[in-house]
Amino acid sequence: MSEGNQVYIAVIGAGGVGRHFLHQLTHLTHTHPNLSLILISRTSKSLRATDPSPGLSLSTWEADLAASKQSPLTISQTIHFLTETHGHCILVDNTSSPEVANAYPEILRRGISVVTPNKKAFSSDLALWKAIQESSYRPTTPYNTRGLVYHESSVGAGLPIISTLKDLIDTGDKVKKIEGVFSGTMSFLFNNFAPLEGKGGKWSAEVTKAKEAGYTEPDPRDDLNGVDVARKLVILARICGLEVENTDAFPVQSLIPKELEGVGSGEEFMEKLPGYDRSMEEVKNEAEKKGKVVRFVGSIDVERKALKVGLEEFDKGHPIAGLKGSDNIISFYTERYGSNPLIVQGAGAGGAVTAMGVTADLIKVIQRLS
Amino acid sequence: MSEGNQVYIAVIGAGGVGRHFLHQLTHLTHTHPNLSLILISRTSKSLRATDPSPGLSLSTWEADLAASKQSPLTISQTIHFLTETHGHCILVDNTSSPEVANAYPEILRRGISVVTPNKKAFSSDLALWKAIQESSYRPTTPYNTRGLVYHESSVGAGLPIISTLKDLIDTGDKVKKIEGVFSGTMSFLFNNFAPLEGKGGKWSAEVTKAKEAGYTEPDPRDDLNGVDVARKLVILARICGLEVENTDAFPVQSLIPKELEGVGSGEEFMEKLPGYDRSMEEVKNEAEKKGKVVRFVGSIDVERKALKVGLEEFDKGHPIAGLKGSDNIISFYTERYGSNPLIVQGAGAGGAVTAMGVTADLIKVIQRLS
Repeated sequence: MSEGNQVYIAVIGAGGVGRHFLHQLTHLTHTHPNLSLILISRTSKSLRATDPSPGLSLSTWEADLAASKQSPLTISQTIHFLTETHGHCILVDNTSSPEVANAYPEILRRGISVVTPNKKAFSSDLALWKAIQESSYRPTTPYNTRGLVYHESSVGAGLPIISTLKDLIDTGDKVKKIEGVFSGTMSFLFNNFAPLEGKGGKWSAEVTKAKEAGYTEPDPRDDLNGVDVARKLVILARICGLEVENTDAFPVQSLIPKELEGVGSGEEFMEKLPGYDRSMEEVKNEAEKKGKVVRFVGSIDVERKALKVGLEEFDKGHPIAGLKGSDNIISFYTERYGSNPLIVQGAGAGGAVTAMGVTADLIKVIQRLS
Repeated sequence: MSEGNQVYIAVIGAGGVGRHFLHQLTHLTHTHPNLSLILISRTSKSLRATDPSPGLSLSTWEADLAASKQSPLTISQTIHFLTETHGHCILVDNTSSPEVANAYPEILRRGISVVTPNKKAFSSDLALWKAIQESSYRPTTPYNTRGLVYHESSVGAGLPIISTLKDLIDTGDKVKKIEGVFSGTMSFLFNNFAPLEGKGGKWSAEVTKAKEAGYTEPDPRDDLNGVDVARKLVILARICGLEVENTDAFPVQSLIPKELEGVGSGEEFMEKLPGYDRSMEEVKNEAEKKGKVVRFVGSIDVERKALKVGLEEFDKGHPIAGLKGSDNIISFYTERYGSNPLIVQGAGAGGAVTAMGVTADLIKVIQRLS
């Protein structure tokens, strides 16, 4: 803990999450006067501070960026710009770009810290995960100027999932199983399709409703294929020490009917989906007969090193069955917590809560740097 | 973040939580080689390291302490011992002693950090809370050598309650209401007395069962008076910025019948309790008639600055109604999270999970110091 250190912040991505983040950063500067925003980088252009202190204006960044004639920066140019700023730099990557993610190891080796909701960096090939870990600061390294890396929002947005899991592991607890609803879209779909009370709508109608309410990706198949949930499981499993190669290394159930996998557009897919309502109705009724409800969940059996994504039936009294809206719920079964898991629940998607996880991580990095 | 800094740890209290903490500390030294335990202090005796590096042995501390002829240390002697150790010191207070708590401001002003589950320090008179805040490190202080203070386990043991609340506030969310079951004892009592399914036992029988299972204090009145829950509310309310004077400043319902308040011993209290079963039975039936269940909860209405501890009725589908065993559940209603709160749930008492919160805090302080 040294005193009065200036911390320089560079932001890539200023859309949904990025915009919320910059708003929260403004709030943060009231309590942390040593922060200085030096770069906002988008695909189309960039805005660089001519003088790192005081840096860019947080009250006028939007107009300043709109007026900026500075060209967009490549990753190498961004790294070059940051290394020329002498002092502690933190890169806030609000994109989901694999290109930026691939550069994390180099960025960290140059002593630049990374804070991000970018799932790609931590759920793609194991080699990238390992490179990121090896390139970042660890207390067992006797001397280094490596960057720190925090990515709370890569799972469950602002919910304290990754920090809780790390606390459990770092304090010596044995995590046995992690189970939960990791997708806000899937949560919304199944809470409406197979509610605890009432009948629920037809599957295709619920998908349409979710799409219209903005709960799905532009092409709903990007949610229905289960890959988003699989990515989150990979991240948590790797934190538990499991060497999961990638999302293809374990069973991931896709809710896209086989016959519609090759369909060209999202619109065509939505048109044809009602033809497959019967099979989902059967799944719902099968559970109902046993007094249960069906939900789309991910689970990690840490001891058996087994990951799984797909439909499961739950008793109506189970916390997963009782979920509301588009909430996530994640249960940690550990040696210390015994038969009743530690549970975290709440909105797991959305610009403001995702940015919250990013900003909270940023605070932790700043506290470690200053 | 400076390199290779040794961090010195002093522990007060080596009983229930303290013993678990020292076990977890052993685990921690594998990943944090720069830790050195220099003092274990109990009421009856102490064990001081003659050489701060490597310090005391974590594998033989129990036998070494038993064999130690070193007299117990007063608080002033402890502070003197720590200030003579040149380097970063962290005091881990595993007691519930108000005397140790009262010394926090002086300890922090001397640059010693404090990590503790001690509720007294943060829920007693407002003046002590303010002195602790003013004496500890803040990023707005341009230069200082003040200590850090972390106390996750003062509410909900190892559950991420305080860290989550701070993240919400620090990132600019507006916390509107906090509500929950904050006492493992009360949770156990009401989950059995008024279960979701079945009738549940008589009130006095459930108190006896809880006492025999070790879920209550030696004198169950120390749980039934509601003060433990009130203390936790005071802590969370103050973090939200409410200047709550102490636990007398708001309504706290006691479940000790008026007539039994003056009874001498816990044994006599337990003997006479069955005579008051009828009134609790009426409370249960009253809720049952509405299709609800009764629970003992605490709530903070942040906007109206209103705290309340006592019995409330909940719909059977409410997460508070569905709680199991002796679990805690805490719901944060905020502007960002909207109508569905952020919920944290799990065991909120017990040596191992309380120590986990302490150890996780210690890691955070070490990360900020080294």
